Amino acid sequence: MDPTRRHRIEGILATDFYQLTAAQAYWKQGLAGRRAQFDYFFRSYPDYGGHAAGYCIGAGLQWLLEWMHESSFDDEALSTLREHRNARGDRMFDDGFLEWLREHGDFSTTELLAVPEGRVVHANVPLVLARGPLAMLQVLETPLLMHLNYPTLVATKAARIRLAGAGGLFMEFGARRAHDRAAHAGARAALIGGADFSSNTGISFDLGLPPKGTHAHALVQAHLADGKTELDAFRAFAASQPDDCVLLVDTIDTLDSGVPNAIRVFEELRRDGHEPVGVRLDSGDLAHLAVRAAKMLDDAGFEKVAIVLSNQLDEAVIQQIREQITEEAPEHGMDADSVLGRLAYGVGTALITSQGHPALDGVYKLTALERDGAWQPVLKISESPEKIPTPGPKTVWRLYDPDGHAIVDLVATDDEDPLEHDPLRLHHATKEGVHRDLAASEVGQAERLLERVFADGASTLGDESIETMRQRRHDDLERLHAGVRRILHPHRYHVSLSHRMWELKTRLVEKISSGA
Amino acid sequence: MDPTRRHRIEGILATDFYQLTAAQAYWKQGLAGRRAQFDYFFRSYPDYGGHAAGYCIGAGLQWLLEWMHESSFDDEALSTLREHRNARGDRMFDDGFLEWLREHGDFSTTELLAVPEGRVVHANVPLVLARGPLAMLQVLETPLLMHLNYPTLVATKAARIRLAGAGGLFMEFGARRAHDRAAHAGARAALIGGADFSSNTGISFDLGLPPKGTHAHALVQAHLADGKTELDAFRAFAASQPDDCVLLVDTIDTLDSGVPNAIRVFEELRRDGHEPVGVRLDSGDLAHLAVRAAKMLDDAGFEKVAIVLSNQLDEAVIQQIREQITEEAPEHGMDADSVLGRLAYGVGTALITSQGHPALDGVYKLTALERDGAWQPVLKISESPEKIPTPGPKTVWRLYDPDGHAIVDLVATDDEDPLEHDPLRLHHATKEGVHRDLAASEVGQAERLLERVFADGASTLGDESIETMRQRRHDDLERLHAGVRRILHPHRYHVSLSHRMWELKTRLVEKISSGA
Repeated sequence: MDPTRRHRIEGILATDFYQLTAAQAYWKQGLAGRRAQFDYFFRSYPDYGGHAAGYCIGAGLQWLLEWMHESSFDDEALSTLREHRNARGDRMFDDGFLEWLREHGDFSTTELLAVPEGRVVHANVPLVLARGPLAMLQVLETPLLMHLNYPTLVATKAARIRLAGAGGLFMEFGARRAHDRAAHAGARAALIGGADFSSNTGISFDLGLPPKGTHAHALVQAHLADGKTELDAFRAFAASQPDDCVLLVDTIDTLDSGVPNAIRVFEELRRDGHEPVGVRLDSGDLAHLAVRAAKMLDDAGFEKVAIVLSNQLDEAVIQQIREQITEEAPEHGMDADSVLGRLAYGVGTALITSQGHPALDGVYKLTALERDGAWQPVLKISESPEKIPTPGPKTVWRLYDPDGHAIVDLVATDDEDPLEHDPLRLHHATKEGVHRDLAASEVGQAERLLERVFADGASTLGDESIETMRQRRHDDLERLHAGVRRILHPHRYHVSLSHRMWELKTRLVEKISSGA
Repeated sequence: MDPTRRHRIEGILATDFYQLTAAQAYWKQGLAGRRAQFDYFFRSYPDYGGHAAGYCIGAGLQWLLEWMHESSFDDEALSTLREHRNARGDRMFDDGFLEWLREHGDFSTTELLAVPEGRVVHANVPLVLARGPLAMLQVLETPLLMHLNYPTLVATKAARIRLAGAGGLFMEFGARRAHDRAAHAGARAALIGGADFSSNTGISFDLGLPPKGTHAHALVQAHLADGKTELDAFRAFAASQPDDCVLLVDTIDTLDSGVPNAIRVFEELRRDGHEPVGVRLDSGDLAHLAVRAAKMLDDAGFEKVAIVLSNQLDEAVIQQIREQITEEAPEHGMDADSVLGRLAYGVGTALITSQGHPALDGVYKLTALERDGAWQPVLKISESPEKIPTPGPKTVWRLYDPDGHAIVDLVATDDEDPLEHDPLRLHHATKEGVHRDLAASEVGQAERLLERVFADGASTLGDESIETMRQRRHDDLERLHAGVRRILHPHRYHVSLSHRMWELKTRLVEKISSGA
């Protein structure tokens, strides 16, 4: 697709049409430029068919900020809207509104406070506060959700897979099963959340990471079809990359053909001064085959050759494979830890599509409107009380216990120090009437989670590297209680409102319920 | 993201790294330029949690062909590969290989035969035959799968949703839940497969369709926060688009506030010479509320105002809502058909993420290699016989009965007329030993499904409109037996091998099994 067309599809008009009609209605009311605040948050953790995550890893922000920097109602977008007519043939957008968009239709006066990428984040905690002209924040809703919901899902899944694999080398292999070009945002999120490398070449190079992979079955088949053998195919591959040689051993028969042929080629490589890297198992009983292959490799003197597993892996399958190896290795005279220690994981479909939970329920809600120069908290009236977003300007604190473990994410009003009270009263973020008290002595440290990430039309984060984000993820996961990190039925992390925020919300709910 | 960077990520390197290392290994063997054939097909229909589809709607081809037209190993890609080094610091790609890529690294000598977009397609039928230099077809694997798997899923889901809604107006609303920019390919696929319109503005304009939508809860909330009322918000929206006014009536209370306020605004619109378009219900018991709202609208003289339903809809939910309305309408003195006839559907998450089945298992397998100027069929040896792809050059026929219903998709060799035999022997495409005979009198028409769609580096389809693709979908669905079209537990459509193709495959399997 040529860049002009790409820009038309993915630029400022990459939003739901109702954002534009709402913006015009605001404009007609003189509300388009009124400063507003929208909160982005998700309501529940992804649940992969029976087991919900205990935390998420935030991702996607940098690409959102780039989109905001580059997108505005330029001549092309304005002329598209000008020419747009309804079924009666009448124009749908007023010249006055289009004039307003020409002057104000960018994000130069929009400010974003957000939790940076790579951090552990929790349900019902505002992860982005967007502040700017009401009409532009409305236009921003769809692209913001598009840019944050999916990468957060994938980064979260990647963190879980990394945990399941106990830190073994983990590669993202999902491009072919991705939703179109989500392959790229997905690979990036996986690399933030837990994958060491990706097979997706372009995005890996873009992020400054080497792309990784093994080889395809087709390599062996092509050689067979050309009258050659699996051994010939392995030799050809080894000759092409003698120091990065991972051989796929299951095209014919893993134990009878693939591994023996691989060992032969590895011996030839070593004779020529190269160290082989690994074999890959892509079908059959991966746990059993890993034990058997490890034994064969050991016996041939290749104790350090990795065993890459692939084929429908996810965190639960990886855990089960590791359990089975622990049980089965001794039966074959192998030390389980030595087998487990050489495993690497190639994960495709389940990661890139967030199988079992393909959409994060991230939402973006109006929570404040400026009126007479001051923020007016806005409450979304909803049929279920637990769905009412926390109103008004706010600060998010993460409290740690004296051992450095995160114990609660606390949503407080903008102008309070939540630690000034002892004990500190914590109200459940969504369940009315549930609260608990925390003694000051139980709090070791308090950290503000939201940072200013966008102002004056550009990111204020600088060019953050993937490494920076990975470090955040690593540090945050270290500070999470093991029970919350757990893959199956994790312990619930606390998300609370400060007493003052709770009072504000309660007051507003009462005011609205009484029809005032 | 600037176009240069986008090109780096989404151009020729938007492929798995192992395609490049395999290509180099082929090059070292003198195989890189050898002409090969790969088949694209999917093995099983998407299964949305217990109910599998009976057919798919093919989509995504046009954007794949554009990608192939635009992508080649240009200077930037070549220099990226030239500079790429392994962990030891050695270059991974030979100058000779890069020189080969510079000369041959595009799709100018690749030919694609494919089933055009919008057609009904079936499992285990080759939907694309790619023929070209082995190395470039290897590079093509990942982008081809990325471009076809996901849109086919969404188009299929859209066809099912359209069927469930009995042809009622159907809008795609999923951008915010899409996997990143899959929002755009997804909206396009939904529009091919069954959606009338999309709320996604940029892609709608790009495809020449008007984007559609209602308004957001935020519009009402913003007015409330500004000291105004729901009625004020409705009036503002109606004033902004008097002839395209669909009001979201559930922000406060659907029946007590939303619908009465909407009726008031509709009366004002009508007084001013405008006809209101609809109301939208986005929460609660949609079936019950639709009946009640229809009654209130009827009583006020707005019999033609549409009732748009949204909120977690999919084909099963829509069917259930319609059943409930059929039961409940008479209890409120309403004619069920008049309520059903005014329904419209806004479908988000379930459609754009293909909820329940987020990845089509489409694969791309080497099936032939040129040797001494002739095609040599290639058989992928696999542990399970049903996974062996049909080898060699081939033609796909769709046979219709004398009434015009499609009865079988038949995979035949390139050089046979499958209708020359009476009866015609049909072998099950994946189950060994299962066959049946079809009398010539049972066949009314035979149609070739594969068309030449790419040659000399460009699409040969011309600029196909969405309307053309929709017409194909419409015609193909009409010619499908109702049992196959059914949403729950559809009847299985027959996919068969011709006797000659079956003989070829059997001979090859035997040859390989005997180790010859």
